[in-house]
Amino acid sequence: MINKNAPVGVFDSGVGGLTVMREIMRQTPNEKIIYFGDTARVPYGSKSRDTVTKYSRQIVRFLQSKEVKAIVVACNTASAYALEEIEKETDIPIIGVVKPGAKVAAAATVNGRVGVIGTEGTISSGIYSEYIKKINPKASVIGKACPLFVPLVEEGLWQDPVTDDIAGRYLEELIDTGIDTLILGCTHYPLIRSTVGRLMGEEVTLVNPAYETARELKELLQEKNMLSDAGAKLGEERYRFYVSDAAEKFKRFANSIIKYGILSAKIVNIEEY
Amino acid sequence: MINKNAPVGVFDSGVGGLTVMREIMRQTPNEKIIYFGDTARVPYGSKSRDTVTKYSRQIVRFLQSKEVKAIVVACNTASAYALEEIEKETDIPIIGVVKPGAKVAAAATVNGRVGVIGTEGTISSGIYSEYIKKINPKASVIGKACPLFVPLVEEGLWQDPVTDDIAGRYLEELIDTGIDTLILGCTHYPLIRSTVGRLMGEEVTLVNPAYETARELKELLQEKNMLSDAGAKLGEERYRFYVSDAAEKFKRFANSIIKYGILSAKIVNIEEY
Repeated sequence: MINKNAPVGVFDSGVGGLTVMREIMRQTPNEKIIYFGDTARVPYGSKSRDTVTKYSRQIVRFLQSKEVKAIVVACNTASAYALEEIEKETDIPIIGVVKPGAKVAAAATVNGRVGVIGTEGTISSGIYSEYIKKINPKASVIGKACPLFVPLVEEGLWQDPVTDDIAGRYLEELIDTGIDTLILGCTHYPLIRSTVGRLMGEEVTLVNPAYETARELKELLQEKNMLSDAGAKLGEERYRFYVSDAAEKFKRFANSIIKYGILSAKIVNIEEY
Repeated sequence: MINKNAPVGVFDSGVGGLTVMREIMRQTPNEKIIYFGDTARVPYGSKSRDTVTKYSRQIVRFLQSKEVKAIVVACNTASAYALEEIEKETDIPIIGVVKPGAKVAAAATVNGRVGVIGTEGTISSGIYSEYIKKINPKASVIGKACPLFVPLVEEGLWQDPVTDDIAGRYLEELIDTGIDTLILGCTHYPLIRSTVGRLMGEEVTLVNPAYETARELKELLQEKNMLSDAGAKLGEERYRFYVSDAAEKFKRFANSIIKYGILSAKIVNIEEY
């Protein structure tokens, strides 16, 4: 028996996945959420498939120990590398951020040219291209890894001439390809959405997989009659946060993304899972 | 009985420690070296003391399994957080990069004002200040964390207007303090030494702990009569490289720092140590 009032598990390599959690909070406000950020091993974007898959498995086991009813892989790199593997091993629904983003991009493009920006791992996996072509075999998908975006966002330079300069270099070749749709294929990127949007121009549609993923989660829970009808009980925390390291720093950053007043994040020894 | 022809172990969170290895190769060309880069968990600079100490312990155990005669902690953050702990647990000599750097800076300063740039972990530990004040209690030590330097170096922007801009912001407050000596307190920083030097001006002495550490290693091996007198045997690799992830990427970067023609790096499951 599924407990429809059980929490949803959300995980990411660090803080980026909070942009996904924020959307889930908006679109399904009744849901309780357990968030895990792998701050001891962040970033995932430059690591290999094997390593990211191993880390994702450990986190899924941790979230299952908290009896979540569904899991959202709120990290593009983990979705790209590990989703298929962990889906096979788990009996609760698992949603990644890649498929929902790809679906919307495939629908949004008019000229069939879609750009994707993300980490080295996400881009080199070619996964967005794979999903988009399943829907629209004629689409051409152009990927561009932007390794400095994550550190720039984490340093707080969301609106800054340096971010403009770096973004200009990364995006230049994408602009030249004539894409009409661009996927923000890393959960940090919505935080520099305005810079990317300005550089790409108004004729390019930006797709934010965070929004689409939250919508897909809602639909899935509805379909399976698993939407919570109760919310948090009195004295129960609606949102709980776990990290593998540096809980205080996580809390500060999290509060700049999620306006909820996060009081604490608990440290978990994730290598034990 | 110490085997003086055993290799020296060198470790870092990733590729930065190769600047230390390069100095060891120059100053003690007879020594065999085993390098370990923790590429699966890099960076250490933003992680907590507990986590960095746990990771360092695992690596020391790995290096001891390779029967090294001495270990160089070629990472400022690990030296700052973990050196004291791991020294207690190990019976071979261990050298960090912090003490040699601090010693030279304390000797070099004329006006007693020393600056240190490094990761958040190294700076917040206050360890350079602690060591410098042991030698010169009147010295004043001003630290500044520069979190974007590592990603900028790893993106290859060693000489670039963006690196100039970011460096200008980080260093501005140090320039205002009238320091006459600046410690490059992160193993990546020698790679942007010219940018830092230009901004600080000629009257500021830059201290590169990589160089000082290699010198201290040489002195220590001499003192203990542990300098290798044989070099590598025929068919034996003089320099061996191990990483916890993404060996190919490591190899490319390593070859841009060390002109040795690194042929391969082996992957180690470091969590098992």
